Amino acid sequence: MPVANAGAPELNELSDLDQLLGSGSTRNLRYILNNLAPADIAHRIESAPPKLQQLLWGMIDPEFTAEVLGELSEDLQLEFLKDKDSAETASLLESLDTDDIADILQTLPDQMIPAVLKAMSVQDRLRVESVLTYDEDTAGGLMNTDTITVRPDLTLDVVLRYLRRHDEIPEVTDNLFVVNRKDTFLGILPLAKLLTSSPNITVREIMITDVDAIPASMPDTKVAQLFERHDWVSAPVVSDKGKNLLGRITIDDVVDVIREDADHSLFGLAGLSDEEETFGSVRKTAPRRAIWLGVNLFTAIMASMVINLFEATIDKVVALAILMPIVASMGGVAGSQTLTVVIRGMALGQVQAGNIRWLLSKEFAVGALNGLMWALIMGIVASMWFNDPKIAYIIAAAMVINLLAAAVAGALLPVTLRAMNIDPALAGGVALTTITDVVGFFSFLGLATLFYS
Amino acid sequence: MPVANAGAPELNELSDLDQLLGSGSTRNLRYILNNLAPADIAHRIESAPPKLQQLLWGMIDPEFTAEVLGELSEDLQLEFLKDKDSAETASLLESLDTDDIADILQTLPDQMIPAVLKAMSVQDRLRVESVLTYDEDTAGGLMNTDTITVRPDLTLDVVLRYLRRHDEIPEVTDNLFVVNRKDTFLGILPLAKLLTSSPNITVREIMITDVDAIPASMPDTKVAQLFERHDWVSAPVVSDKGKNLLGRITIDDVVDVIREDADHSLFGLAGLSDEEETFGSVRKTAPRRAIWLGVNLFTAIMASMVINLFEATIDKVVALAILMPIVASMGGVAGSQTLTVVIRGMALGQVQAGNIRWLLSKEFAVGALNGLMWALIMGIVASMWFNDPKIAYIIAAAMVINLLAAAVAGALLPVTLRAMNIDPALAGGVALTTITDVVGFFSFLGLATLFYS
Repeated sequence: MPVANAGAPELNELSDLDQLLGSGSTRNLRYILNNLAPADIAHRIESAPPKLQQLLWGMIDPEFTAEVLGELSEDLQLEFLKDKDSAETASLLESLDTDDIADILQTLPDQMIPAVLKAMSVQDRLRVESVLTYDEDTAGGLMNTDTITVRPDLTLDVVLRYLRRHDEIPEVTDNLFVVNRKDTFLGILPLAKLLTSSPNITVREIMITDVDAIPASMPDTKVAQLFERHDWVSAPVVSDKGKNLLGRITIDDVVDVIREDADHSLFGLAGLSDEEETFGSVRKTAPRRAIWLGVNLFTAIMASMVINLFEATIDKVVALAILMPIVASMGGVAGSQTLTVVIRGMALGQVQAGNIRWLLSKEFAVGALNGLMWALIMGIVASMWFNDPKIAYIIAAAMVINLLAAAVAGALLPVTLRAMNIDPALAGGVALTTITDVVGFFSFLGLATLFYS
Repeated sequence: MPVANAGAPELNELSDLDQLLGSGSTRNLRYILNNLAPADIAHRIESAPPKLQQLLWGMIDPEFTAEVLGELSEDLQLEFLKDKDSAETASLLESLDTDDIADILQTLPDQMIPAVLKAMSVQDRLRVESVLTYDEDTAGGLMNTDTITVRPDLTLDVVLRYLRRHDEIPEVTDNLFVVNRKDTFLGILPLAKLLTSSPNITVREIMITDVDAIPASMPDTKVAQLFERHDWVSAPVVSDKGKNLLGRITIDDVVDVIREDADHSLFGLAGLSDEEETFGSVRKTAPRRAIWLGVNLFTAIMASMVINLFEATIDKVVALAILMPIVASMGGVAGSQTLTVVIRGMALGQVQAGNIRWLLSKEFAVGALNGLMWALIMGIVASMWFNDPKIAYIIAAAMVINLLAAAVAGALLPVTLRAMNIDPALAGGVALTTITDVVGFFSFLGLATLFYS
């Protein structure tokens, strides 16, 4: 539902904030900030440097604090909650959706969780505990327990009167769920059908029974694929056995999963962790990035050891040292292209055992075609540059070899890594460039050693 | 709404399809295929090699063809429509949502569009033409015209009876829109409120007026940010002037925008075009990828020309040739980390003129810290490897210089490219590695020339 924003001063540029801060007019700033929707306040905080983040957080009216907290990244949630005791944390969390409470709880230090749960009301605690029993990355961890259920033998008129007794219906409700006395899920009653049907017929007559209820153990990525493919707005979650209705998943939470999955591929391939934040502090950012730089240093040294094998040849023909990075670089780019396509295909559930062979042969053919074309051009450039046809043949051959190796590595690495239970998005990029560097240097300098000795 | 899938045979593995094809049992295959939801049929087709794609497309029951077409990628839509005449195309399209028809029309050859429009019913043509007047990448191009509108002076009872006269309500309807006689947008009436309020009060009393209606010219990326931030399911689209209600945007179309934007960053940074498809044909894939390989070849040659400047030094100290790729590689990885974070921050609307200076100083500090640490370690490795403290100092200094250059380039390149109206996701990666290669080789070999002469 579009959120209230009436009469609030427009705050388009973060520089406005800076100006206000500079002028010392904190009262003005507090007014502007608290007139924004909670999600917009969270966006401002996430777009601000760490010191300013603390300042802005301190300015939020208590009535909005919980909602803003729910919209922030895990890192910031933890940051802002770390000085609060369990009672304060519990009262902050209680106004949020069950799945959000569970998510935030899981970011807290382990010894805090029971204390915070204890400080909650019994009803809320039971709800949160029911979500906490499921892994964060499953349908159970993603669901909310705020379902509206009806029995199949009611008439629509009774359902309408029952709804009118509610002050409000949970947000993003497009279906009511039909259950029997034992809470077994029977089907859905779309609000649209409820509104277009005669009040005298029963729920049973118009409920839809052939729906895919989501088992609580389904991975969230799979849930997101189903929502995306079928344009769902909400879907029921049932127990793996017995089909008891446990809760529902709504599109707003699924959008977050889609965003996280997309970020995961993007970040992983660039050697970044999922926790990376644009405006994270130096102290948090530097160690996270250092790990991948270290892994890359290690693999770069391995590639240099390959070059070292051919020290004598380079000593004889210095042109080799000048040209060798070109061979490695072309392999790296071609390999990243293949790797990215395959990793995305896997994330969308397109790449499977049945079609990987076709995919490999396609990538091999593309690598061969582009390898031959650019090898020809590079050969001409090299022969003109160094006035030496021999080096032209050598670099052309090495480039074709490396682009073929890049195609094979790019297509098979993600599949192999997944089979070994290693995350392809995370390890794929480093492994790939190691292969294209090693193959590039080895084929180029190896061929040169043969032809120049 | 969860889609019917009852009694359909499970078809989990694409290899099942292969087996069925191999056994020649096309009747069985046709049965399985047509028992899937249209979105699932589209998914199967997109996960199949080109030849199989044609075969599967030909097997779809006519009653599902249009819906499957609507779920396919642009490339495949064009592929399957190219043999059809304008009347066939028009009748295929007419059952789809207005925005989908407009999207598909825009992929057709220019001379086809008027013919297809002419073959449509007058009502459909007017609708499609109203969407076609807006750019594909704006709110107007994203909207559907299937709104249900009510007047503010009606009682809810009248609204309920009015709805009951509909056979069905458009999918993903969570709000009715309130307009005056001139179709000026006044506010929204959430179905949830309609259902929980007394039938005797008027729409005016419970409608929500302080909502952000989306102007038709708003870019789709901005629309997606609003939906994502405010958890909207649908939102009204109004004319830029006069606030006339034009249509509405629904979350399912927004999810597609989010997916496209995420793919754009991922693909761009890997040197792939947005049209790249996992199971695209070799003929389509090879030329698209060749462009980026060519650009990379050009920049790699530039980097080699830098090495060429120091030919004499390398000739004297071969160890330099062995170690120089390490300096370039570390700069490339550090630069990609920064570039990726900044490009994503820009895509989410976090990075702005007001905070780019802070971002730059953070990235500079991270680059300095990690540069110093890994330079120290690399220095120790180099001095042990070549038994030469001089080369250790040189590589350590060059690595620090290159990681600082990488931080500056990674942070400023996207902002500079955007200011020049060049897409940072597309050009950023190539530009960055050019910089880190050139700076890496120049600083390492330059320092070596100073110290070994």
